[in-house]
Amino acid sequence: MNIILFEKDEPINVLSLEDRRGSHIKEVLGLRVGDTFDMGIVNGTRGKGKLLALSDRDMLITFLPSNNPVDETPLPLAPVTVMCGAIRPVGMKRILKDLTQLGVERIYVTDTDKGETSYLKSRLWTQGEYRQYLVEGAEQAFVTSIPEVILSSHLGETLDTWSGDMEAASLDRFALDNYEGSFSLGKAEVNQQGCVVAIGPERGWSSRERDLLRDAGFRICSLGKRVLKTETAAITAVSLLLSKIGRL
Amino acid sequence: MNIILFEKDEPINVLSLEDRRGSHIKEVLGLRVGDTFDMGIVNGTRGKGKLLALSDRDMLITFLPSNNPVDETPLPLAPVTVMCGAIRPVGMKRILKDLTQLGVERIYVTDTDKGETSYLKSRLWTQGEYRQYLVEGAEQAFVTSIPEVILSSHLGETLDTWSGDMEAASLDRFALDNYEGSFSLGKAEVNQQGCVVAIGPERGWSSRERDLLRDAGFRICSLGKRVLKTETAAITAVSLLLSKIGRL
Repeated sequence: MNIILFEKDEPINVLSLEDRRGSHIKEVLGLRVGDTFDMGIVNGTRGKGKLLALSDRDMLITFLPSNNPVDETPLPLAPVTVMCGAIRPVGMKRILKDLTQLGVERIYVTDTDKGETSYLKSRLWTQGEYRQYLVEGAEQAFVTSIPEVILSSHLGETLDTWSGDMEAASLDRFALDNYEGSFSLGKAEVNQQGCVVAIGPERGWSSRERDLLRDAGFRICSLGKRVLKTETAAITAVSLLLSKIGRL
Repeated sequence: MNIILFEKDEPINVLSLEDRRGSHIKEVLGLRVGDTFDMGIVNGTRGKGKLLALSDRDMLITFLPSNNPVDETPLPLAPVTVMCGAIRPVGMKRILKDLTQLGVERIYVTDTDKGETSYLKSRLWTQGEYRQYLVEGAEQAFVTSIPEVILSSHLGETLDTWSGDMEAASLDRFALDNYEGSFSLGKAEVNQQGCVVAIGPERGWSSRERDLLRDAGFRICSLGKRVLKTETAAITAVSLLLSKIGRL
């Protein structure tokens, strides 16, 4: 945690020691009354937090926004969209956190033909817990900006939602597939305006889903001959794309 | 686990159900007597395993090596070496597994000035448990080849060991550093013969270590303005390098 973030509409002053941020300030940073720490507002400004008082149960803090232009505006996200087949929550949390660290703009998560429909019924999604992993990714990256996350119950719905976006038409589209990828993503040329990459769940896309992707203009590609775990493939694919559009 | 691997000198025939591979064959794959599964020898050939008998406690299997040339020789590792500052075991396991999936040739792990010296005293290293994570990475990637892993107690020792290798002189050298990186790794040109990348621990390199790296011809670079967790940075850096040398 390189910066401590608060949601825009969250009261800031009193922070419980049971809150992960309160515990971080007391236990990991070991701060004392009067000390300051890096703090920011999700999708907003960075600045300093100041510890005003500390009890056995909670602490009183205040936020001092920076007036340095570098801190006032969130670091822009990169024009990279990821469409990800839902996987088990433990792997999904890692993906959300890692892709936020890397700075992607938008993540679609969808149930897939070969995935378990139970995945989207987990607390991660039904209780909105997923947002915490986005915030944690930004806290690691020392930024305030987090990607937009959109859920769908099937890939067709994801593609419909996505193609409704006016920008979509100009973007390069890639779909990773261990079985039918005809070229390696590392060798692709990518439009500097941005791109979208679809990453299947552990068992891959169904042939119905491959057809949907091809119909929507996606090029089916691979990441070499090695079968990467979804969590690893997501970081690898996004890293290559960020580099190709000059953002890494 | 896309293939089940055995060490070269390991007896194959009887496999306990308490062994992670025995439990995978019975519980996850749900195989019955007479069924076959993908199997291979670490750094050796691939083929099929056959389930010959099954009891409540163990199973009897046999290995049928493939005589297809694609399976007889392990998929070559890429000429990429990683020097990694030791981090806590939970993160280190992920790095070992992910870098094996990606197919790097060699991983140096070293204690660092800003890391905890306790890290190399964990069972992961003292009991040789690290090897299991390499094997698991290869099992995920559906290959048999795993990287060589070399431990050192400080970065100077790592660099000495490494530079003793005759190939070292011709390789491009990069060191990731959040503070003093003067260019982004994604924009670097890389010698097709191979490269080495040094990745610091969570708190980064000390100025003494930066000097050692510079003296050994390493160029200090970054992965952009976002502070990536060591585990994420390792995958990102290796992915970019593999792509630049035409291996991804």
